Amino acid sequence: MEYRRLGKSGLKVSALSLGSWLTFGQQIEDKVAEELMDIAYEGGVNFFDNAEGYAGGKSEVVMGKILKKKNWDRSSYIVSSKIFFGAEEKKPNMIGLSKKHLFEGTHNALKRLQLDYVDLIYCHRPDKETPIEETVWAMHQLVQSGKALYWGTSEWSALEIMQAHYFAEKNHLVPPVMEQPQYNMLWRDKMEMEFLLLFRDFGMGTTIWSPMASGLLSGKYNNADPKDARFSMDNLEWLRNRLLVESNIHKVKLLQAIAERLNTSLAKLAIAWCLKNPHVSTVILGASKAVQLKENLTALEVVPLLTNEVMEEIDQITGTKPEVIIP
Amino acid sequence: MEYRRLGKSGLKVSALSLGSWLTFGQQIEDKVAEELMDIAYEGGVNFFDNAEGYAGGKSEVVMGKILKKKNWDRSSYIVSSKIFFGAEEKKPNMIGLSKKHLFEGTHNALKRLQLDYVDLIYCHRPDKETPIEETVWAMHQLVQSGKALYWGTSEWSALEIMQAHYFAEKNHLVPPVMEQPQYNMLWRDKMEMEFLLLFRDFGMGTTIWSPMASGLLSGKYNNADPKDARFSMDNLEWLRNRLLVESNIHKVKLLQAIAERLNTSLAKLAIAWCLKNPHVSTVILGASKAVQLKENLTALEVVPLLTNEVMEEIDQITGTKPEVIIP
Amino acid sequence: MEYRRLGKSGLKVSALSLGSWLTFGQQIEDKVAEELMDIAYEGGVNFFDNAEGYAGGKSEVVMGKILKKKNWDRSSYIVSSKIFFGAEEKKPNMIGLSKKHLFEGTHNALKRLQLDYVDLIYCHRPDKETPIEETVWAMHQLVQSGKALYWGTSEWSALEIMQAHYFAEKNHLVPPVMEQPQYNMLWRDKMEMEFLLLFRDFGMGTTIWSPMASGLLSGKYNNADPKDARFSMDNLEWLRNRLLVESNIHKVKLLQAIAERLNTSLAKLAIAWCLKNPHVSTVILGASKAVQLKENLTALEVVPLLTNEVMEEIDQITGTKPEVIIP
Amino acid sequence: MEYRRLGKSGLKVSALSLGSWLTFGQQIEDKVAEELMDIAYEGGVNFFDNAEGYAGGKSEVVMGKILKKKNWDRSSYIVSSKIFFGAEEKKPNMIGLSKKHLFEGTHNALKRLQLDYVDLIYCHRPDKETPIEETVWAMHQLVQSGKALYWGTSEWSALEIMQAHYFAEKNHLVPPVMEQPQYNMLWRDKMEMEFLLLFRDFGMGTTIWSPMASGLLSGKYNNADPKDARFSMDNLEWLRNRLLVESNIHKVKLLQAIAERLNTSLAKLAIAWCLKNPHVSTVILGASKAVQLKENLTALEVVPLLTNEVMEEIDQITGTKPEVIIP
Repeated sequence: MEYRRLGKSGLKVSALSLGSWLTFGQQIEDKVAEELMDIAYEGGVNFFDNAEGYAGGKSEVVMGKILKKKNWDRSSYIVSSKIFFGAEEKKPNMIGLSKKHLFEGTHNALKRLQLDYVDLIYCHRPDKETPIEETVWAMHQLVQSGKALYWGTSEWSALEIMQAHYFAEKNHLVPPVMEQPQYNMLWRDKMEMEFLLLFRDFGMGTTIWSPMASGLLSGKYNNADPKDARFSMDNLEWLRNRLLVESNIHKVKLLQAIAERLNTSLAKLAIAWCLKNPHVSTVILGASKAVQLKENLTALEVVPLLTNEVMEEIDQITGTKPEVIIP
Repeated sequence: MEYRRLGKSGLKVSALSLGSWLTFGQQIEDKVAEELMDIAYEGGVNFFDNAEGYAGGKSEVVMGKILKKKNWDRSSYIVSSKIFFGAEEKKPNMIGLSKKHLFEGTHNALKRLQLDYVDLIYCHRPDKETPIEETVWAMHQLVQSGKALYWGTSEWSALEIMQAHYFAEKNHLVPPVMEQPQYNMLWRDKMEMEFLLLFRDFGMGTTIWSPMASGLLSGKYNNADPKDARFSMDNLEWLRNRLLVESNIHKVKLLQAIAERLNTSLAKLAIAWCLKNPHVSTVILGASKAVQLKENLTALEVVPLLTNEVMEEIDQITGTKPEVIIP
Repeated sequence: MEYRRLGKSGLKVSALSLGSWLTFGQQIEDKVAEELMDIAYEGGVNFFDNAEGYAGGKSEVVMGKILKKKNWDRSSYIVSSKIFFGAEEKKPNMIGLSKKHLFEGTHNALKRLQLDYVDLIYCHRPDKETPIEETVWAMHQLVQSGKALYWGTSEWSALEIMQAHYFAEKNHLVPPVMEQPQYNMLWRDKMEMEFLLLFRDFGMGTTIWSPMASGLLSGKYNNADPKDARFSMDNLEWLRNRLLVESNIHKVKLLQAIAERLNTSLAKLAIAWCLKNPHVSTVILGASKAVQLKENLTALEVVPLLTNEVMEEIDQITGTKPEVIIP
Repeated sequence: MEYRRLGKSGLKVSALSLGSWLTFGQQIEDKVAEELMDIAYEGGVNFFDNAEGYAGGKSEVVMGKILKKKNWDRSSYIVSSKIFFGAEEKKPNMIGLSKKHLFEGTHNALKRLQLDYVDLIYCHRPDKETPIEETVWAMHQLVQSGKALYWGTSEWSALEIMQAHYFAEKNHLVPPVMEQPQYNMLWRDKMEMEFLLLFRDFGMGTTIWSPMASGLLSGKYNNADPKDARFSMDNLEWLRNRLLVESNIHKVKLLQAIAERLNTSLAKLAIAWCLKNPHVSTVILGASKAVQLKENLTALEVVPLLTNEVMEEIDQITGTKPEVIIP
């Protein structure tokens, strides 16, 4: 396993990490979850990603039980939670980035995880109804009180992240360290254009979700929209609508051909492609089966095959390489 | 129930909330207090207002017991305390806004309430004998240490509040978020004139006390000064003197006629009138009887009846609309 | 003549000073203006008050010519201008507190006054359409560039003045030093209540206008509303409406009786009464006749006659002493 | 003419203004330029836009001569320059945003314009080879020294502008006030999406260039690419490539139909459409003929015709309304 710094921070994250979204406490049995964590940990993965909103809090409960049972050295792994969507209930002040929910949400996440602190705590989305001041102060306090070691954001715009740095620096508060954006061959603008100034000036780290475009880049939707896949789950219409379009299916077939030529799977090609980007700190893998995770954990082997020529070929197929037009 | 942001903060407060002043631990039995809290909570009220000085600390004891018994999810409600007047004893350093009393007062309030933290902590009055620096530092520390989530003021002048912001910003401390002023049809200058700059530049939230002018706008004093009402209680002479004058009684009768025309009660008219002001975050209701609280909790229905014409009619009657004279 | 510090500043201002409002370039001949300035200067007055808006700029032209002719030592007197209302033309950007008008207005005022700098430059009114940042930056720059020595405000609210201090201190800019408010026996709230915190915390100086309530306290309106008085001039309806009411006329007659008892004139009583307030740096006298100015310049003699008893008697008559109610 | 505040600043800009790009010193005779300025000034236009790079400095020379000849009151108009592209020569340090070029460029622009100061000075493009610190310090100094009253940017990204604010606030320097972006029915993302946070948090003003998409929205390219038009000029290939595509020509024809239905010209429709956006401070009109300018100066009359229905129809045709996807 390769380890990378989380941006300019001193924290080392395994280049591949394990996420619990849609699987833990939801798609898979708890014993499968345990098997996946075993495989990951043995394979050198040191980062397990979670959030209060995953499976209404159950994902954290499942992960917490496994961590307790395994009794691995606390310093050998990194756990995250993300606050915004709430867990079970969604009454006023049970969602969002108000100080009240950030505090109570983190407190509840720690209880579910049976941990004294998480390594990483994220603001899971921007909150238009809370001023940045309140959120930055709250994250600072969570970090100062030892409930979390580093704080970051997920799916925030570059401007919102810079605003957080702005306010933090002005008030001598702890700034955000990392962002968790979607990033894959079909969805590139944020990582390759919007965030450039943040990488240069703040050394922002990134923990990538959806390296396979929610499964689209696994090739499993090439022929159908199977019932058991995540697109059929409730509340994911926005992902389906955005990604599962005819033109993307066509692109996926062309990418599949490249993968075959390189003697690898499309999934591993997609993961390796993310890892080529030096601004990626870690790629979060989701998995519902042991065999799938084992396979994808070998994706680092594919990175050296991604020559400039192959990368350009991929750019041609996807047509998603952002172009910076300076008029 | 409607929920409003507490000023520009991310906290959502029910537009109507329940106060314990003069009732809990004083005018009413504890089981009535419990009944009132049940009615409020079921009706969507999420804010219960309290202070160290209410009934010499007994109000907090009563509310604490009820909250413990109910075992409602802590994140589903907001509790406040206010420090200044002390609880039982009033020796030196047992009142005011010195750091000593703010710390010890808050600590004691939390013990009486049986809580780890209050959501809102107020400086209950300005203290001419403590410099603003000491008070702002103390409030900042209370918030930083997790004893309270947000801090604010009650019955401070705009200038004093701005001074607190001034000192907080200069020293990178947490600024006040809300003010608890008296506001009703007869007492309007602060909310409608003095505070305007604070609303614009600091997004100050307000938790309104005395929407019915201490009962005057319930109409109960129209014929007499009854023994059981709050004006007859000790230490409230200042309120009596200020409000219970002949001319006000006359105005109340005219307002009563408007309420009748709108098919509502004067009390609900008075409450709804406060809610019309967009700078009002929540209106705190006092109640000594279940039937009265149930009735007043429906005041939101009256808000749409308050057309511009009705509002102007009220202005004519009260003569209290502040006039901004720019020479 | 007595000299007082302009607030906590090092500048010494004569307790009585000469204003040009409504007179220079308007009510009086230029040679009368010259005579008045001579009398004042000889009498120890060292402050001549002016503004771009007085007589559409003509007041400054007249004063500038006189100062040039007299050739008094520049360091023996203090001249002010005030920017806001514009001079002759009132196109967009020719009025208000935008940086553009503050710069161009000051530049033009200096040309009219034939001076390199004014000692005091005022923002003549608050400007709701310019942010405080822009105004404070502009005043700072005017002071830094030597166009004015001190800057201040006129008829601003305490909150607006504190905002200016707030922004100035945060950005290490020169803060305002003085305010020019209306102040007289009938109009006291600002000086005796609203500004108290500013006197205490910023050492704000005050240059008082309208010590005689625009002539009302001279007694000249006791019997009529004579054509030659300033109330009959254009655009002063707001003053007339505010002051020239029946009840005030009655008060003036009672005050007249006190003046007679003290063997002085009502005008001098009114001026001396202002001087009793230690927060008053100087009282600006308007005059259209030499005899009137000579008389009023002796008002300092009346100050010692204003015993506590007399002051209380005046309070009883006017009913304008502000009462601080702390609930 | 309508006047708008330049963002939250106190400066009032005419809603329509006159630009010299491509015309002054280039496409048109000097006497036509004079005629255009006369028409504009008489029509209430108070802002004349310029840049060092327009016609290699000649545009400023022409405008400077006209302003001198007219001798209009300096406070009745606003002039800008923009520094980045250099004027005649382009040796190292004659272009970009280094302190050296910003100082020398501004100095030379003022000489060409025969002015002591410009009202607005812009950084005409971002400069990847100068750190933001150097640029913000230089602009601050230009403003402090009185060479310009306000500074801003042109064609900067939101992130770059926020960085400038970030550095300015941290160091107590004058922040940028306005941005000059391209904005028209075909090019909307910056104004309607990217800049939103800047409008809200910094009150940024905007001076819009290319309201007619460089003439495309005048309809003149509907049939051909005429030689006399600006697309045929040197160095404008980037504009041509971006805008003059088949699909845009088609859209323009449909928009023309709307203009006809509203009894107006496509050009005026395009200008009025920009003015509907409340974040637009002024729309800069280019013109090579008197008749064209006179006509376009009446575009304010078209604004009220742009009902919600018409605006939606335009959105349907252009397909350029940005969609905010919150995942």
